Amino acid sequence: MIRTAIIGASGYTGAESIRILLKHPEVKLTYLTALPEECGKVSEIFPEFKGRCEMNIEPLDLSKLHDVSDVVLCCLPHKVSMGFVPKLLAAGQKVVDFSADYRLKDIGIYEKFYQVEHSDTENVKRAAYGLPELFRDEIEGKDLVANPGCFPTGAILAIAPLLKQRLIDPSSIIVSAVTGISGAGNKPMSKFHFPNMNDNLFPYGVGTHRHMPEMEQLAALVSGQKYAQVLFQPHAGPFDRGILSAIYTRPDVQVASEQLTELYHDFYASEPFVQVCSEAPAVKDVAHTNHCHVYPTVVKDTVVCFSAIDNLVKGASGQAIQNMNLIFGLEETLGLW
Amino acid sequence: MIRTAIIGASGYTGAESIRILLKHPEVKLTYLTALPEECGKVSEIFPEFKGRCEMNIEPLDLSKLHDVSDVVLCCLPHKVSMGFVPKLLAAGQKVVDFSADYRLKDIGIYEKFYQVEHSDTENVKRAAYGLPELFRDEIEGKDLVANPGCFPTGAILAIAPLLKQRLIDPSSIIVSAVTGISGAGNKPMSKFHFPNMNDNLFPYGVGTHRHMPEMEQLAALVSGQKYAQVLFQPHAGPFDRGILSAIYTRPDVQVASEQLTELYHDFYASEPFVQVCSEAPAVKDVAHTNHCHVYPTVVKDTVVCFSAIDNLVKGASGQAIQNMNLIFGLEETLGLW
Amino acid sequence: MIRTAIIGASGYTGAESIRILLKHPEVKLTYLTALPEECGKVSEIFPEFKGRCEMNIEPLDLSKLHDVSDVVLCCLPHKVSMGFVPKLLAAGQKVVDFSADYRLKDIGIYEKFYQVEHSDTENVKRAAYGLPELFRDEIEGKDLVANPGCFPTGAILAIAPLLKQRLIDPSSIIVSAVTGISGAGNKPMSKFHFPNMNDNLFPYGVGTHRHMPEMEQLAALVSGQKYAQVLFQPHAGPFDRGILSAIYTRPDVQVASEQLTELYHDFYASEPFVQVCSEAPAVKDVAHTNHCHVYPTVVKDTVVCFSAIDNLVKGASGQAIQNMNLIFGLEETLGLW
Amino acid sequence: MIRTAIIGASGYTGAESIRILLKHPEVKLTYLTALPEECGKVSEIFPEFKGRCEMNIEPLDLSKLHDVSDVVLCCLPHKVSMGFVPKLLAAGQKVVDFSADYRLKDIGIYEKFYQVEHSDTENVKRAAYGLPELFRDEIEGKDLVANPGCFPTGAILAIAPLLKQRLIDPSSIIVSAVTGISGAGNKPMSKFHFPNMNDNLFPYGVGTHRHMPEMEQLAALVSGQKYAQVLFQPHAGPFDRGILSAIYTRPDVQVASEQLTELYHDFYASEPFVQVCSEAPAVKDVAHTNHCHVYPTVVKDTVVCFSAIDNLVKGASGQAIQNMNLIFGLEETLGLW
Repeated sequence: MIRTAIIGASGYTGAESIRILLKHPEVKLTYLTALPEECGKVSEIFPEFKGRCEMNIEPLDLSKLHDVSDVVLCCLPHKVSMGFVPKLLAAGQKVVDFSADYRLKDIGIYEKFYQVEHSDTENVKRAAYGLPELFRDEIEGKDLVANPGCFPTGAILAIAPLLKQRLIDPSSIIVSAVTGISGAGNKPMSKFHFPNMNDNLFPYGVGTHRHMPEMEQLAALVSGQKYAQVLFQPHAGPFDRGILSAIYTRPDVQVASEQLTELYHDFYASEPFVQVCSEAPAVKDVAHTNHCHVYPTVVKDTVVCFSAIDNLVKGASGQAIQNMNLIFGLEETLGLW
Repeated sequence: MIRTAIIGASGYTGAESIRILLKHPEVKLTYLTALPEECGKVSEIFPEFKGRCEMNIEPLDLSKLHDVSDVVLCCLPHKVSMGFVPKLLAAGQKVVDFSADYRLKDIGIYEKFYQVEHSDTENVKRAAYGLPELFRDEIEGKDLVANPGCFPTGAILAIAPLLKQRLIDPSSIIVSAVTGISGAGNKPMSKFHFPNMNDNLFPYGVGTHRHMPEMEQLAALVSGQKYAQVLFQPHAGPFDRGILSAIYTRPDVQVASEQLTELYHDFYASEPFVQVCSEAPAVKDVAHTNHCHVYPTVVKDTVVCFSAIDNLVKGASGQAIQNMNLIFGLEETLGLW
Repeated sequence: MIRTAIIGASGYTGAESIRILLKHPEVKLTYLTALPEECGKVSEIFPEFKGRCEMNIEPLDLSKLHDVSDVVLCCLPHKVSMGFVPKLLAAGQKVVDFSADYRLKDIGIYEKFYQVEHSDTENVKRAAYGLPELFRDEIEGKDLVANPGCFPTGAILAIAPLLKQRLIDPSSIIVSAVTGISGAGNKPMSKFHFPNMNDNLFPYGVGTHRHMPEMEQLAALVSGQKYAQVLFQPHAGPFDRGILSAIYTRPDVQVASEQLTELYHDFYASEPFVQVCSEAPAVKDVAHTNHCHVYPTVVKDTVVCFSAIDNLVKGASGQAIQNMNLIFGLEETLGLW
Repeated sequence: MIRTAIIGASGYTGAESIRILLKHPEVKLTYLTALPEECGKVSEIFPEFKGRCEMNIEPLDLSKLHDVSDVVLCCLPHKVSMGFVPKLLAAGQKVVDFSADYRLKDIGIYEKFYQVEHSDTENVKRAAYGLPELFRDEIEGKDLVANPGCFPTGAILAIAPLLKQRLIDPSSIIVSAVTGISGAGNKPMSKFHFPNMNDNLFPYGVGTHRHMPEMEQLAALVSGQKYAQVLFQPHAGPFDRGILSAIYTRPDVQVASEQLTELYHDFYASEPFVQVCSEAPAVKDVAHTNHCHVYPTVVKDTVVCFSAIDNLVKGASGQAIQNMNLIFGLEETLGLW
């Protein structure tokens, strides 16, 4: 059994990780931590775990880590994570980090978008980017994996085959996405107060969302080009879970829908968690699963691709555990099926 | 034109009052106030009013009141309101007070449930209880009206004909109600954070809700008895607006459903805002209206009555404006139809 | 008082029209019709009208129309409407038609997208397109107005200033929109069965939606160009009312956000129902109103514009009544404020 | 591996059963059937199973059953089920029947409430009632188990300790419950059309719901008395999954809250799926689980008990699989944890 700790267990991704790991046959949850004011019995903080998990969430004691766990799911926020990850590694842990701190290889871009000096640039270089469908080889056996952002996961899986085949102009990518509100975290805010968010839908982060440079890095990398330009526009919608991405992009060569269908089926043929659909996907069909449904087509000379994921599962905790499975050489789908 | 001020305009009942009054043909909104940190342009605080209302919400200046307004809708919270109402009256205003401070005639019960000493007991005695369907005569021309609680409005309208006719045992009343989340106010809270409240429903205030003594006072008063006992159990449900009340009570004499139907039709025959339905009512049918749908029946020797109201309209701002119309001798339905 | 009939009153746009007209000071509802199987008391078909409207919905009797009404809101479906409109006109009625039958000036395009031969092409030529903000002069006094589609209303209002000023390439328009489910009508369908649609969001009509040619006709007309190409992608989201449109388009000249803000403020300065926002609009802020909130900006050399409307009000019944006001020379905002 | 068939696999309980059984370590799904018009690939009927289940749903061929399966989850509707169950038993199957056909021991009551002559009264006598927490001994090894109704499951678990101890008057039970809409099945209906049900909540089945006699049978049985009277009032609420029951009942002896807490903790001490809470439970905390959260208390001399379950899991498919585990002597929680 792999002994697993969750650092920052009191938020939504912490709860989702617990939820999944309680059913994982090769994992034993051994240590859950959070800020002192968020500690207590798991079953009181998340009443859904009553009778299912009798653990406590405790303040982090780094000195215990070495003795109790083999791997850490680090659910700390951006900017905070990089202060802890080196210590987790030093404590002999494998680390899957949920924050953005190890995702962007270009430190300058990180520092611009996150408005902070990066304090652990060495580990940025070593970290694998944890999108197994594209970077499986780099993840296997790795000790530090940067778990991808939820929006980049959905967007890039939707267009990866096009990028790899260089069928589209990588400077023409428009990602218009709608996310459920769990993506905003569990801290109450006026915008997401139920009577304000119910029956509502609105764009946010116009031109400024931090997942934009992450998508650009990925699109460039996957297409093997210097540079990609992504216009990413997120919206918040009145549901808990899920991201629906619609991606509009200009083909570089003439393409037909059937050709894309075939390409996608080939590309994802052996992927357990990516399904190529024959019509546009729906958020609810992937909710509470680690699956990504994709659908590519051509409309009026524009390539239009859709994807749906659960932001808390394939967009966060599920993918982290998929990465954890790869790190330890386990069956990739364990606990996630 | 009646010049109207809203004190405490930055919350949901303030916004609902503005919404209604903008369409009221005999009212001019002249003054909107709130705590300094909640002031600003109405259309920025509530973007729905963009292009519809160019007023500002300002910190309250009592010295201005006399010159700018005839009536105040006082949307201050419980305990705060009683500190202001005497000053509003002194400034020559008619006052419709939304708080509980002037509802409970028994100061001892008020002080027990609200855990505070009442500082304005004289005005409690003079205040009319603003449920026009039952106390219209006392409201007309009054200078201080205590606007009823949302739950008591729904519950008492559902059983008033029974109480008046002394058909039920006033110590046997069980009120099981579900409210939309706007009833909890606009302050963000973890419980009502969208991902927590969406798809959720739960009871709260078990045995302790402050609307329980208000219902008891009313039930006793309407039935002309010393004492009534109400077991009131509220639930919070995943919708913005509305209260559905189911009331279970033992008849004192044998009654049949048809008899109740007839009684209710007679009782509410000339009431514009109460409709007697031929089946159980639905929250959505009264949302955004000042109407109350009621339906009485008999099941297994128990009288079961249902009512539906919009908690922000008939349960708050709409009823306040209905009261305001009565105070000024206007057509009762003005602005509310 | 203008005597008004609603043909096809049993659907959502019929109900919304009744809701608005009950508060309209210059209109008297005189005749409501529907298919025989959908007839009955208004207050039974729509319980929200209990105590507010005692009319019946009856089967249409064309011979009565002349005597009872001056204007018809024709809420019949596409393809059906064109069979009735000539008869309504012959009965001396002014007609605001909600269907697509009189919107598309190019009969060939109509017949291709609606898969039917058009039976009333003469009236297509005469009909005004009822988007008052752009075609007010043609609507005033007209006897036949084609009420716009909900999506075209939102999309075109969002970019009309750009089109008029020829600032964008009219062949580069991508409209990505999310609509509430009332847009799909009141007929129960598996996709919109509550447990299927709740918490869900999905694209539909990929490459085929009938509002696409309507947008193209409008974009060409407004920009004064022969041809416009619009890629329109609708999504269905878990809310009742509202359309949020995000429009991505390439500028023909270099533009800056500030410049667009100014242009939009000028363009819509005297429009009561269009508000230019300083940030992206939200569906809930326009729900239950006839307002359209727009916001233009520039992101990475792409012009990005947003708009929010209520699909049943500004996208249907509200706009129809706005048109009706113009037809009769009334204050345009009457009943709609 | 236990080979399992699902008869009537195309509805919500069918889908939920598949969902659970795909993760059950000792079960192999071997046969899925439905009405011919509802057959097809599982992954097309329920797109959530894309890539997870490649089976087809086929028309039932009774002659195959013997060879392919050991147990049948019979998800057929009331009245239909009793026509099939004898044949399933004859084909050597263990049967867990989801319908009401084998729940009510009093055939007269069944025939009155279901308005049909019962065609299989012999098996009614033999069937175990599948509420494991109360009738575990009778279920183990049984070949026919009547899976309980969703409302009776929630209601009876909430008061079983009181009934067993004879602390309450079994003729005084009022059950006021709110269910999510999946409880109404997957057939589209006007009432549950998204724009009608969203933001709505309403009572239904006033005085007539068929789960009322089922609760009465259970309450009498558990309390060891001849007769119990339950006033059951269901409501439909705007969420997919879950039932929140509030039960009001008169104690026969004086009881205090603390005493009830202790009693419940003792009663459910070894039950994996029933948790005694220290405050009122919430529907969302049990959604997607087989757990039942209960909370008893005393308010004004009335015993008030609450329970929350997921109607599709503990109220249907989960409980069926719990029963299946018992039938085969497996760990009761297998696949359900």
